[in-house]
Amino acid sequence: MDKLLSWMEHTLHQLNLVSDMNQIDGFSRLGYTKEEQKSQHQFRVIAQELGLETNQDFAGNQWAIWKVDEKAPTIALGSHLDTVYHGGGYDGVAGVLAGLATLKALKDEGFQPNKNIAIIAFACEESARFGVSTIGSQAICGILKEKHIGHLQDLDGITLSEAVENCGLKWEEINQAKIPRGDLEQFIELHIEQGKQLESTNTKIGIVSAIARPTRLKIMCKGMTNHTGTTRMEERRDALVAIAPLIHFVEKKAIEINKRQEGSIVATVSKLELNPNSMSMIPGEVIIGIDIRSTSAALKKEMTTSIYEFLEDIKRKRSVYIHVEKIVDDNPIQLDAFIQKRLHPTCSELGFSSMFLDSGAGHDVMNMAQKWPSGLIFIPCRDGISHHPNEYAEMKYLLVGTKLLINYLKELVVTK
Amino acid sequence: MDKLLSWMEHTLHQLNLVSDMNQIDGFSRLGYTKEEQKSQHQFRVIAQELGLETNQDFAGNQWAIWKVDEKAPTIALGSHLDTVYHGGGYDGVAGVLAGLATLKALKDEGFQPNKNIAIIAFACEESARFGVSTIGSQAICGILKEKHIGHLQDLDGITLSEAVENCGLKWEEINQAKIPRGDLEQFIELHIEQGKQLESTNTKIGIVSAIARPTRLKIMCKGMTNHTGTTRMEERRDALVAIAPLIHFVEKKAIEINKRQEGSIVATVSKLELNPNSMSMIPGEVIIGIDIRSTSAALKKEMTTSIYEFLEDIKRKRSVYIHVEKIVDDNPIQLDAFIQKRLHPTCSELGFSSMFLDSGAGHDVMNMAQKWPSGLIFIPCRDGISHHPNEYAEMKYLLVGTKLLINYLKELVVTK
Repeated sequence: MDKLLSWMEHTLHQLNLVSDMNQIDGFSRLGYTKEEQKSQHQFRVIAQELGLETNQDFAGNQWAIWKVDEKAPTIALGSHLDTVYHGGGYDGVAGVLAGLATLKALKDEGFQPNKNIAIIAFACEESARFGVSTIGSQAICGILKEKHIGHLQDLDGITLSEAVENCGLKWEEINQAKIPRGDLEQFIELHIEQGKQLESTNTKIGIVSAIARPTRLKIMCKGMTNHTGTTRMEERRDALVAIAPLIHFVEKKAIEINKRQEGSIVATVSKLELNPNSMSMIPGEVIIGIDIRSTSAALKKEMTTSIYEFLEDIKRKRSVYIHVEKIVDDNPIQLDAFIQKRLHPTCSELGFSSMFLDSGAGHDVMNMAQKWPSGLIFIPCRDGISHHPNEYAEMKYLLVGTKLLINYLKELVVTK
Repeated sequence: MDKLLSWMEHTLHQLNLVSDMNQIDGFSRLGYTKEEQKSQHQFRVIAQELGLETNQDFAGNQWAIWKVDEKAPTIALGSHLDTVYHGGGYDGVAGVLAGLATLKALKDEGFQPNKNIAIIAFACEESARFGVSTIGSQAICGILKEKHIGHLQDLDGITLSEAVENCGLKWEEINQAKIPRGDLEQFIELHIEQGKQLESTNTKIGIVSAIARPTRLKIMCKGMTNHTGTTRMEERRDALVAIAPLIHFVEKKAIEINKRQEGSIVATVSKLELNPNSMSMIPGEVIIGIDIRSTSAALKKEMTTSIYEFLEDIKRKRSVYIHVEKIVDDNPIQLDAFIQKRLHPTCSELGFSSMFLDSGAGHDVMNMAQKWPSGLIFIPCRDGISHHPNEYAEMKYLLVGTKLLINYLKELVVTK
């Protein structure tokens, strides 16, 4: 296995386009950019070296296929190659790398599968550039609302449709992305946990039961802008002072719900903008964004209801105008129970400690799961940090995840 | 007086470069721009029609002088012509207009002064463009730190020194700005109140005793950025949740100080920036700006000390890093007591209700007062609103202020 480990280490650098994973500013390889394309190119080079057939679909997703039989079903593994601004080199790459390493190991062992096995490197999984996540996997699953999002702009004013076309694709054809041939029997994604549950319990593998997709509120609080120096305290309608208690309330309410132990929830005031945002002006308007996640739709509802009630209270006390918009309200996604049940004994056979857990973050698998039986495997990442230059996963855990995939496939895909 | 009123109404529009004072987006006539220059041009046209000598100094301040005797001292009136972004047409213009109208009235009456009388239209009073206020009056008073501020940029990346040079001036000569001849005996500024004290007590004139210049704190609170979906509530070091109670505390403490009635204070969290400011990220860093004003240096000190103590408490409770920088700490400016004592009976003689009050906002007079005996007169403005398209002062109050100036000058400047 030492040979596989060093191949993986080399390939990790290759997919990240660096010779050293320590990058002070992290990795900024956003979706539908030249940087993502360079990484996709490396993916194809590596896949071809392994004797796999490579393919790009209409959404720019990369496919590497161990094709054995046109009529046989396909098992797919994979994740994505793009990152957020100043992100890490493991979120996404880990799953693509583990997939490629799994096929390399099976090939090196002389294994001859009776089903096709594909590795997918999904395009533009992160929402960092256009505010929309998992574009490539949505397109494959035929759930991309391409008419509603093509106009969205990145920080440079480039629209999503322009960015896609700059990659040599056609925006109006993006929803024609599909499995290159036949149908998928199942899809398994491996990903770093982006949390601390594995690390803090010293567990090697997380088998994910459900994905807690977000409910997101955009709250506008309007008071009255005026001069900070000339407006007496009792004459003010300061929108920031009015809305500020909500920040603490959101945290308090989430902790209170978690204490009941009926399920868990996280809730965050993650965006805040003042208008004006100027030293000598009382903020007349505040716009707040709240991100709420739980695998329980009922707990998410309890949280939003309590926020609405709290805002009513603020309106009464502070004579401000408040408008709330639910900009996202995605139901939790349950992953395939059969796959979870098969992954668990495979871990035990290999001597890997494992636990069932939920995912607070969205992943490409949440789209795939709506169409095909799908599973998600987590490996530990240091301090639970992701989307940050300090993101790090030990090679030994990447190898553990790969071994799990190897054995899982061996059970599922009988040698011909 | 009907004739003077209609002349003033016409001139108000002329200085504001409009035929209708109702402008939905307000006035954006920033310092050292073509727009300010156009208004300055109108000022010179009007002054010349009144038979005054016009002059521009090295800082771009405009002077209109009723010159009677080279050796006689000069009394100056004035204010500024620039505005903030989307501001009103009274903040600044009111004082310039009242000054011009005063000279017109004295001339029309055949009054022959024994001292020179000047109207000054100061350049770039507002800090909106470069973050530095009262540039023109600072230059006249020789207190402009031109070496420290020339590099400051506006929203388009134009530096202050470039903007000044674009107006045909020389940045390195700006501190050579001075009184065109002789010395100033005193300076009086008329300005809209930008507060509600006059309006709410139905008082026509405010005689300002002191100017409460700001103390400004920049507070950086650093926790830990992480993913909103994957980081459990108890694992977080959310910088926004940590610092948020400060927003309410600043208001509460100011109200508490004011209740003691030992003097008044205003304090505002007026700037707030999250980093990152993204739906799916826990804010790892928050930068807050606080603006504190009082004519009592002791009360300002009490406020800042209590903020420091509150922050120590936050640090302990939330394990965040907090850094505070006092970016501005200007002492209050006391205006000339003799001028105030003379203005008061002049109001009484004219039958104008008046009150002594403090100014929460800075004005050009705060620089002039450091060099020459100076006074500041407030007239009411509707709802205390300024720096906003809704800023409005009734013509009748502009006339009241002008009449006060006329009579004040008649007492001060004996007819030859």
